Amino acid sequence: MYKDATPEEIELTMQQSWKAFHAYRKLSLKQRAAFMKAIAAEIENLGDELLKVTGEETNLPEARLRNERARTMFQLTSYADACEKGDWLEARIDTAIPDRNPPKPDIRKMLVPLGPVVVFGASNFPYAYSTAGGDTACALAAGCPVIVKAHPAHPRTSEMVASAILKAAQRTNMPEGIFAHVYGAGTAVGEALIKHPFTKAVGFTGSYTGGKQLFDWANQRKEPIPVFAEMSSINPVFLLPEKLKQSAADVAKMYAGSITLGVGQFCTNPGLIIGLESEGLQTFIQALGEEIKKIAPATMLHPGIFKNYVERRANSLSQAEVETIAVSEAEPQLNQGAPTIASASGEAFLNNPVLHQEVFGPYSLVIRCKDMTEMITVVNHLEGQLTATMMATETDIRYHDELMEAVKNICGRFILNSVPTGVEVCLSMHHGGPFPSTTDSRFTSVGADGIKRFARPVAFQNWPDALLPDELKSNNPLGIWRTVNNELTR
Amino acid sequence: MYKDATPEEIELTMQQSWKAFHAYRKLSLKQRAAFMKAIAAEIENLGDELLKVTGEETNLPEARLRNERARTMFQLTSYADACEKGDWLEARIDTAIPDRNPPKPDIRKMLVPLGPVVVFGASNFPYAYSTAGGDTACALAAGCPVIVKAHPAHPRTSEMVASAILKAAQRTNMPEGIFAHVYGAGTAVGEALIKHPFTKAVGFTGSYTGGKQLFDWANQRKEPIPVFAEMSSINPVFLLPEKLKQSAADVAKMYAGSITLGVGQFCTNPGLIIGLESEGLQTFIQALGEEIKKIAPATMLHPGIFKNYVERRANSLSQAEVETIAVSEAEPQLNQGAPTIASASGEAFLNNPVLHQEVFGPYSLVIRCKDMTEMITVVNHLEGQLTATMMATETDIRYHDELMEAVKNICGRFILNSVPTGVEVCLSMHHGGPFPSTTDSRFTSVGADGIKRFARPVAFQNWPDALLPDELKSNNPLGIWRTVNNELTR
Repeated sequence: MYKDATPEEIELTMQQSWKAFHAYRKLSLKQRAAFMKAIAAEIENLGDELLKVTGEETNLPEARLRNERARTMFQLTSYADACEKGDWLEARIDTAIPDRNPPKPDIRKMLVPLGPVVVFGASNFPYAYSTAGGDTACALAAGCPVIVKAHPAHPRTSEMVASAILKAAQRTNMPEGIFAHVYGAGTAVGEALIKHPFTKAVGFTGSYTGGKQLFDWANQRKEPIPVFAEMSSINPVFLLPEKLKQSAADVAKMYAGSITLGVGQFCTNPGLIIGLESEGLQTFIQALGEEIKKIAPATMLHPGIFKNYVERRANSLSQAEVETIAVSEAEPQLNQGAPTIASASGEAFLNNPVLHQEVFGPYSLVIRCKDMTEMITVVNHLEGQLTATMMATETDIRYHDELMEAVKNICGRFILNSVPTGVEVCLSMHHGGPFPSTTDSRFTSVGADGIKRFARPVAFQNWPDALLPDELKSNNPLGIWRTVNNELTR
Repeated sequence: MYKDATPEEIELTMQQSWKAFHAYRKLSLKQRAAFMKAIAAEIENLGDELLKVTGEETNLPEARLRNERARTMFQLTSYADACEKGDWLEARIDTAIPDRNPPKPDIRKMLVPLGPVVVFGASNFPYAYSTAGGDTACALAAGCPVIVKAHPAHPRTSEMVASAILKAAQRTNMPEGIFAHVYGAGTAVGEALIKHPFTKAVGFTGSYTGGKQLFDWANQRKEPIPVFAEMSSINPVFLLPEKLKQSAADVAKMYAGSITLGVGQFCTNPGLIIGLESEGLQTFIQALGEEIKKIAPATMLHPGIFKNYVERRANSLSQAEVETIAVSEAEPQLNQGAPTIASASGEAFLNNPVLHQEVFGPYSLVIRCKDMTEMITVVNHLEGQLTATMMATETDIRYHDELMEAVKNICGRFILNSVPTGVEVCLSMHHGGPFPSTTDSRFTSVGADGIKRFARPVAFQNWPDALLPDELKSNNPLGIWRTVNNELTR
């Protein structure tokens, strides 16, 4: 039903996108924002039919989909507000000093869009990280046309959302080619899109293998382009001694919920829990096991993800020194992931790279360290992570500064006494982290700061006011925050 | 005299740098700024002996070196001020809303340093883009230790400046390993430094071949790291019709100076001048030729650069359709670059990639386009550039919007009626541009925004005030600008 785009179709799509780029980037921030808000409205107009189709394609429950749709619309409208507000433009003005020797020229700088952006959506977020998700919203805000490669796990959903985007584009008089939607079940379409000279950036959410491949293709181009790939993270959680002593059972209960939320299919799922061998840790492990046993298996997104979960879980559990602690007591049906907890020593973790691999699903491994030195060694052997969490009292934190610093250094979001699942959409959110959790730790894929991924600065030197963009004119007609002669002002 | 660092020495250096990183990043912005200002003072303390040594190593005249030293000290002190001011931290705070459903957590974000930065200096700026140059200043401001590989063309200069940095480090109690200085005449030392797992970013100014090699090594690592390489740019200048009619001779005079400034050895040297076939263009070419003939050859930085200039100039001049317009009338001595102007048609430029190559030195090629359509085609076939300049009246600009947009799209700094040589050190400067002028068009190597190259965001979720860094505490003890609940405030 959904045919892969041919090379000729891809060429035509990119030509149209490039043409649209030149028209779209000249539109005002207000016009871009109006387009984005129209997309949100058109998605809402798709009504419950959209939820029904997505439910069939993803097995996600309606309540979850309803929330995710609301989040997606909030992303579009709040990034539209941020776009219009213009803080993200990083406008800087240094005025001329003609009588300096040599004379100082007038220089003004702002961000401008990179060009057409190719977006690869995620299977686990059919709305918020897909066709009209965060990458698309950020690219449109930055002034870039978007080409979405539909995720093969939810092509009908993607098609419906794409039609909403095109309707919004028409309604707000956007240039033809501002948005394109292509299908490609294999890797050929993605490769052709990334290697096309008119493609100037890439957004991706998915597996390490997929993201790294896009990154390599992009860097092997004659003109390398940035790839913002969010790939893999096991989101370590550190259980500190005093905290465990005080509330091991409560922490266990909280984490049983986080590990199994959405059948563990979140990029921020806590896949690794690290504590010191102690009575408190034993209490925690036992309590967590009891909780996990009570949580029923649930249907995963699609058979591929289920198969992957079964294989990786089995592989982890089969490692020497890995002890299975608890498995959900209910019998899983076809494609249902069974909540599972296992445990291994710090030494085993340090010596076995398999235990560092993400098991995407409701699985978590508890690592028992013999002392704080070993725990710090474990941190120093961990790969880059989207999140890291300290379950700790204030005394724990103050007493373990070296651990704190080591953990902070490997993550993008650093959480205290809470769970990593649940990514708030706001400006202070950082959804990104050191490699391999993402390909570029300097940028976020959630929150309006994500707009900056798709823009670059241009400095205007010696231009008269009348010929400058409104964003940089002396009387600041748009009323945006700008740094003028080193002082922030509007 | 200067021995290449051995693999063991490199390993030890990186171990010390990594250790220093953990200590240095915890220091306050004030302490980092004090260190940077101490470096500037220690460089001044080196006195005229430094100028003498650099003059011997680079053939640069004393006045130029004196200016460059002043610029280097200004970079250190002004980036130190920017560091302390903290705008670059991009601090964002979203406060909790506990009674929302689900509750909104408190999230606060700021930039933190990446880790040890390896800096490769430039031969053409022995101070400002070298040992204590812009990359080093930005990395130290960001909180990163620096490892400089001395440029083989000015090792004594580099050694003296390194000693000033180490003296400043000692005087301001910086951690051991905060700065290291290594020698390496071949590529082995650079390769080992870039591939070391503790290296987290690279700064480079030099040739395309060198920069691209570092970029490839960095991306082939198990953990890829960002490379900020400023590589090659021919800095096109567009002569628009009305401007030429009004002042062809004045423009020619201005450009004769820019083309030959510093024997053409600036990355912003205007290597390409593009006009429409017309009487005005003929007047310009003739006047430029007359000026160039009168300008004497001067000694280049080192024999390698001289040899490269001679070869590339000869190669360009030998292309079919390239006509030599003028060569300096004075006989060049050994290692002296002779100012030279040549010309070719737009069609020849479009068909011959050799004419797109940078000829590093006092050489410029005038391209005669048959009409505006051809001029726009030329722009669309140009590689990414650090700068592009319009020599134009206001009418020219308003009448040629398509050209304007096309040119803006390929450059990092867009200049009107001036020359690209001379890079003002200020916040609004963008010294960067689309590939291949740099490897990352989103960042600048001049101005305090360059600090952000070496930092990444970390979001703190749910931390009590007492455990947050000062930069993010609710009462804003450092008085920095922060975005709190979407509003900029301090």
